[in-house]
Amino acid sequence: MESPIQEYLESLLADVQRLRGGEPYQVHPPGREPNPEDFGICLATVDGRVYSVGVADQEFSIQSISKPFSYGLALADYGFDAVDEKVDVEPSGDPFNQISLAPVTGRPPNAMVNAGALAVASMIRGGGGRSAVRRIVDTYSRFAGRDLSSSRSVFDVEIRHSDRNHALAYLLSSVEVIENDPSRALENYLRQCSVQVTCRDLALMAATLANGGTQPVSGEQVFEIDVVERVLSVMMTSGMYDDAGAWVSSVGMPAKSGVGGGTLAVLPGQAGLAVFSPPLDGHGNSVRGLETCRRVSKDMEMHFVRAARSGRSAVKDTMEISRFPSRVRRTEEEAEVLERYGDRARIIEVTGDLFFAGTESLVRAVSELEDGVVFVVLDLRQVYDAGRLARQMITGLQRQLAAAGRELVLVTGEEAPALIVHPDAGPHGHAAPVPVFQGLGEAVEYCEDALLERYGAPISATERVPVTESPALDLLEEADRERLAALMEHRFHEDGDVIRRVGQRFGGVHFIVSGQINTIATNPLGERVRLNTLGAGMTFGELALGTADRQETTEKAVGEVEIMVLTPEAIEVLEQDDPALALQLWRALTRDAYSLVDRYLREAAVRLTY
Amino acid sequence: MESPIQEYLESLLADVQRLRGGEPYQVHPPGREPNPEDFGICLATVDGRVYSVGVADQEFSIQSISKPFSYGLALADYGFDAVDEKVDVEPSGDPFNQISLAPVTGRPPNAMVNAGALAVASMIRGGGGRSAVRRIVDTYSRFAGRDLSSSRSVFDVEIRHSDRNHALAYLLSSVEVIENDPSRALENYLRQCSVQVTCRDLALMAATLANGGTQPVSGEQVFEIDVVERVLSVMMTSGMYDDAGAWVSSVGMPAKSGVGGGTLAVLPGQAGLAVFSPPLDGHGNSVRGLETCRRVSKDMEMHFVRAARSGRSAVKDTMEISRFPSRVRRTEEEAEVLERYGDRARIIEVTGDLFFAGTESLVRAVSELEDGVVFVVLDLRQVYDAGRLARQMITGLQRQLAAAGRELVLVTGEEAPALIVHPDAGPHGHAAPVPVFQGLGEAVEYCEDALLERYGAPISATERVPVTESPALDLLEEADRERLAALMEHRFHEDGDVIRRVGQRFGGVHFIVSGQINTIATNPLGERVRLNTLGAGMTFGELALGTADRQETTEKAVGEVEIMVLTPEAIEVLEQDDPALALQLWRALTRDAYSLVDRYLREAAVRLTY
Repeated sequence: MESPIQEYLESLLADVQRLRGGEPYQVHPPGREPNPEDFGICLATVDGRVYSVGVADQEFSIQSISKPFSYGLALADYGFDAVDEKVDVEPSGDPFNQISLAPVTGRPPNAMVNAGALAVASMIRGGGGRSAVRRIVDTYSRFAGRDLSSSRSVFDVEIRHSDRNHALAYLLSSVEVIENDPSRALENYLRQCSVQVTCRDLALMAATLANGGTQPVSGEQVFEIDVVERVLSVMMTSGMYDDAGAWVSSVGMPAKSGVGGGTLAVLPGQAGLAVFSPPLDGHGNSVRGLETCRRVSKDMEMHFVRAARSGRSAVKDTMEISRFPSRVRRTEEEAEVLERYGDRARIIEVTGDLFFAGTESLVRAVSELEDGVVFVVLDLRQVYDAGRLARQMITGLQRQLAAAGRELVLVTGEEAPALIVHPDAGPHGHAAPVPVFQGLGEAVEYCEDALLERYGAPISATERVPVTESPALDLLEEADRERLAALMEHRFHEDGDVIRRVGQRFGGVHFIVSGQINTIATNPLGERVRLNTLGAGMTFGELALGTADRQETTEKAVGEVEIMVLTPEAIEVLEQDDPALALQLWRALTRDAYSLVDRYLREAAVRLTY
Repeated sequence: MESPIQEYLESLLADVQRLRGGEPYQVHPPGREPNPEDFGICLATVDGRVYSVGVADQEFSIQSISKPFSYGLALADYGFDAVDEKVDVEPSGDPFNQISLAPVTGRPPNAMVNAGALAVASMIRGGGGRSAVRRIVDTYSRFAGRDLSSSRSVFDVEIRHSDRNHALAYLLSSVEVIENDPSRALENYLRQCSVQVTCRDLALMAATLANGGTQPVSGEQVFEIDVVERVLSVMMTSGMYDDAGAWVSSVGMPAKSGVGGGTLAVLPGQAGLAVFSPPLDGHGNSVRGLETCRRVSKDMEMHFVRAARSGRSAVKDTMEISRFPSRVRRTEEEAEVLERYGDRARIIEVTGDLFFAGTESLVRAVSELEDGVVFVVLDLRQVYDAGRLARQMITGLQRQLAAAGRELVLVTGEEAPALIVHPDAGPHGHAAPVPVFQGLGEAVEYCEDALLERYGAPISATERVPVTESPALDLLEEADRERLAALMEHRFHEDGDVIRRVGQRFGGVHFIVSGQINTIATNPLGERVRLNTLGAGMTFGELALGTADRQETTEKAVGEVEIMVLTPEAIEVLEQDDPALALQLWRALTRDAYSLVDRYLREAAVRLTY
């Protein structure tokens, strides 16, 4: 079906098409008169989807829209200080072709007016076997994501109509802003203006700026973020000639127009917009280009004030780890310790982005925890973006907690490597590395083990629960338990042994006497996931009874394992020889099964988010 | 423990304190010489937390920092057009007290220079029994969240040193920008400049602007978002006198300084920053104030380009509804239909904010679904902010889907009323209202029912399953089933009857013959949640066997319900009279219990997010 965004752009095009007025640029090669009715709008997202309506793929001259890209290239080549010495960053309030330099410094006010753009063009040199013009065109091509070229026929007419720019170049040379041949600077500048682009190209060039300098389709980082920040700042105040203040007020997006009929606007972080419509107003801006930017800014709320991140707390929830017990089944004694001390380990669930507001809320939540909380688990799996501040502040939290004998634990998921902190505490000495887990389950298990260690019920892998003391059988008389035990097979397994495999037929009820086993299932994505870990005194294998006698999970030994198995054959014998005891057994197993059902139901009630 | 943000501000204060240079403003009441060493920094979040270091609570004169707030008041009073007629929005590049008006229009270039501020002051009238000055001071007070006042002694010296402003006021009068008594405009302006504020006040005033005009602590909407957008736009280009371009490039936050030593900067959507330090540079900006803003912008990445929302896709996942089956237990026939046609209903899980990028990704995901998908569930519960575009586009999606006989279903949670759309399709006629659910479960149940309706297995509440055909007993011989049935009690319930209540002792195994019952549990937050819905042929009540014989859930009739109950007494009799049949019964119940365990385990594997 057609996207409503496409629909919106179509109705916008139809609306703005009705706008009359303005004259196309009169300098063009013979026979290439611009058509005042040509009109196209393209919108490119930061992941490279381009919506286009109208004339999207017809080439025209980039003209002044080249200026921000060449400015960025010069900044990247020479650094900010060297470029700032030649060209200032102040809005000029001057028409694009006015001859004016700052009275004191002789510097052009900014790189968006012709004087500044000529100065920038004079700085860009060839290199690596490529001429200056080649490097410029290559840079634009990397922004557009395709090979662009400069039109010789456009250049030929431009140079014949360049008296003012000629004068400007020599004026700049006279005050030593241009330090080499001014006619070469002029030529390079006019060649950059003659680069042929489409509306779609411009949208992708804008989206690359919106995307922090990385071309959305190719993934290539064309400019560093510092350069992008500077280029967009200057576009914000000086991109649209003498309407700087009105532009910021009414549109609020960094933008640049060109007399070729193109207009480009950038919504940082989100999208690039491009318009092609040749009729120009008295300032040299495209009449329909301006109106389209105004309309899109308003309709799509792209003004920098509205498009600002809403400073929402990143802390979704703070809870005791007992809300998300690990899947290690604990003994009663252990469960009691975890219940008593469970509030000393807290999970802080973090979501959204960690720029200022998010980071501040996270830091506040941790800082305000009672001192008695010794383990702080930051669950960062739902964080999708984080700045330098977040890393710095998480390091600060870790240092402060460590100094008080407390511990920070991070859960990052698979995709948050930028947040993984191994803090080098600097002046305060090296802090211990922060435990980092991909999943919350492992982090909780880590905290549970540490709590058990700290508060008196350390985990004992050597614990032994004779089958006659198995909780599953505790409703039976001792003599009955002894009789059942006598019917069982005694088995031993090594670490990693597969004891039961998914798909096998019911193989009896398995009682764990010592050691641990992992229960592994396959989820619908085909991934093998650990369902739980069972220890001494627990049972497994009986689940096959519920599923057409087929094993639904795989059970694997963790370390050495000792088990007692009541085989199907033994059960059959028992049912024939001693139906009363068999009845006891089934009642016991039913209760045990329902304890499990109850446990799962209660877990479901806890996690019931829907 | 101390917040790392507090730590950061303390080290910043110590660093910047070392910066020398500048002279405090020399106009002050006798004996109230500013102390050049006074230095404070306050940072206020959009939820009202204020971090402060240094001199945070000492009063000083607001001076020119009053200008944006009075400008906003005039915009709110008269509308944009009337104010724009008097004052332009262009950066001036002029020092704050320069006498210059635009050559053509006579308008002051913007409201941040004295000429513009005088023109604004002349427009603000009294009303509602309050003088103009009273209204101005009240507005500032609402921003600060406490009662501020204008200092008479400061005003008295200001008016004696107001020759330039005096001249300006009369010049503005001569060109009819000031239309009433210019000496009254001057007096009001100087009284507004004499309002006494603290660094903390300024931080909260800035945070109010950052928060779209709503004071973070009082919750009062002082300015509308349109006014805030305009005020911040003008502050961005003209707030810091003749450094507009450099300010945008190096700091990139709307800001305003005052000769009283205050500086205020706004990070839209996130925070307000205020600095107090009296020594001023040649432009009248606080030396330490400027440096603090530069440092904070860089360290906390508050430049508007970096602080921009990252345009992340809002679509977290797209899945068939079978991934999240409703808690209505379906018959085998129904389950088959749902399995066959389940891919015709999809859940799109949406997260983050729905401004441009988020909305676009959502719209794209829906638009690209195959035409065969007839139900599209938008799960919007994790959306925390949405703009006009999102509402408009969701309406557009709904219209397009409806036109093709498809349906949009919204899940909003409790807190997303702004997204609830009852689209009035306008020119295309009224569309059907969109089904809106708070929880995903209800939405999925709605889709399941609609799929069953559409694809041939409509739900029959009148279906009847005699207890002898109960699936739980299907391993037993028919004769045995008949004998069990003969031991049972036949019971009938009305809609809403509580059949079993949490905490009751084991009351027997209940077989549903016809009708439905809801199983209700209490989650740890004390909320009652529906665990599942059971229908004819299913059993309940046996779970109490797993939990010390106590009922853990409440069962409630939905409509009329017919059940057969095997009471504890009947079970006891059976075990004594016919242990072999009792054994059969227990085996059957064990299998049934393990089927449930298996089902929960498989659901857990599906949902295993950790």
